[in-house]
Amino acid sequence: MSKQIVIIGSGHVATQLGLALHHNGHRIQQVYSRQLPHATALANLLDAEPVDQLQKLTEKADFYFICVTDQAIPTVIEHLPKQLKGIVAHTSGSTDMAVFPKEIYRYGVFYPVQTFNKSKAISFETIPLAIEAGDPETTLALKSLAQTLSQQVFDCDSTQRLSIHIAAVFACNFTNHLYVIAQRILQDQQLDFELIHPLIQETTQKALTNNPLDMQTGPAVREDYSIISKQQHFLTANQSVDPKIAELYDLLTELIIKSKKRP
Amino acid sequence: MSKQIVIIGSGHVATQLGLALHHNGHRIQQVYSRQLPHATALANLLDAEPVDQLQKLTEKADFYFICVTDQAIPTVIEHLPKQLKGIVAHTSGSTDMAVFPKEIYRYGVFYPVQTFNKSKAISFETIPLAIEAGDPETTLALKSLAQTLSQQVFDCDSTQRLSIHIAAVFACNFTNHLYVIAQRILQDQQLDFELIHPLIQETTQKALTNNPLDMQTGPAVREDYSIISKQQHFLTANQSVDPKIAELYDLLTELIIKSKKRP
Repeated sequence: MSKQIVIIGSGHVATQLGLALHHNGHRIQQVYSRQLPHATALANLLDAEPVDQLQKLTEKADFYFICVTDQAIPTVIEHLPKQLKGIVAHTSGSTDMAVFPKEIYRYGVFYPVQTFNKSKAISFETIPLAIEAGDPETTLALKSLAQTLSQQVFDCDSTQRLSIHIAAVFACNFTNHLYVIAQRILQDQQLDFELIHPLIQETTQKALTNNPLDMQTGPAVREDYSIISKQQHFLTANQSVDPKIAELYDLLTELIIKSKKRP
Repeated sequence: MSKQIVIIGSGHVATQLGLALHHNGHRIQQVYSRQLPHATALANLLDAEPVDQLQKLTEKADFYFICVTDQAIPTVIEHLPKQLKGIVAHTSGSTDMAVFPKEIYRYGVFYPVQTFNKSKAISFETIPLAIEAGDPETTLALKSLAQTLSQQVFDCDSTQRLSIHIAAVFACNFTNHLYVIAQRILQDQQLDFELIHPLIQETTQKALTNNPLDMQTGPAVREDYSIISKQQHFLTANQSVDPKIAELYDLLTELIIKSKKRP
């Protein structure tokens, strides 16, 4: 059933969630941003009304999605109109549901486990949606809305959600930074990052179709100390390499060797 | 032109390189392994003769590919027949070309920039092949053989090759271990690693179609210290998380923040 929705925020998550809801037959009534031009830009895409004051939010929507930075969530909640009859949900991985004041309105969390970008459209169909709410009826309402977007909707408490976010930081944010480091090491030797693209693709592919623990390759897991010390020497002897990167090499090497021995 | 080839070794690289040469019309004459059953298993796939003594190698091949562990390369070289007229090449990322004794035979390096697996067939067509040799004529011969397998053949000295291997350790081996850590964090909360598969795919996809430095997301690059300290607390308070993993979190967070500020 088509729902009436308000989007609070105009960033990556607001944009992609708004588009997914809009394209799946829901009606976006309003888009809020502190900066009216930002609200207007997204509202135009969603056929919605732009607003730049929280007090101007309609009281008649079914859902209010808070898609702002984690730091801004408490302030937004504080300034919401008090008479809302719909469900208020934030979309953050690391903000506890306890951020909501109890007994003012129905509340919950609607966390899409994905990384978003304003300009790159993304299908929600395969994005896991983690749902938590203040009461069972609200859980049901959020889940049934979520199911209109994705095939993978699941219950998830605040601790689990935090752990998903941390796992994502390791598997995605930190991984991306390892690509940055690799690129610099290559560039220092006048080599292109593209050289290792096939290797990166193959590694990711293997980790996603197997247990990554069984897919570990490289000098650390083989305990090939002759190569390890050659590579350590290359990193420490090379003045253009940050000493912290050599430290990172040692720490990850140690963790890989240890992971073999863990029962 | 079809070449006569000897494969020394029977592991992942030996198998995949042997298969690629065989399927591209070259003739594998012999496969050497210290253990005859290993030599025989691969030789059967390649329509070749298995041998378990280096002194039994034919003197009449065009190329001898040393595909053994880095530690074993010097021993293999020491025990090769002295009268070889063909080119001897090792396939290692981290072994300097200086491992070859000068003026005994023509020598070089033929390094496929990819991770291999005995059982998973892989097309060499898109694998970059890094070539180095002791003299220009040998370089040419190795490159022209390489071009029968891959569209991406390039000159690469020993230092560059070492840097490719180190970059691969960061971008692939270490990345895989970050997946292992992420999986453990999720499992501790009764969650499946599959939950973050779409996130990992999207992250890799973005890093390979853009400059990874511009694609960095997450609390560190936003300097969102409120989330960073929540996540640090989760890691240090959780007894099932190795303290070294909290250390890794801090180090990578620091490196990401620094990378923003690098001119």
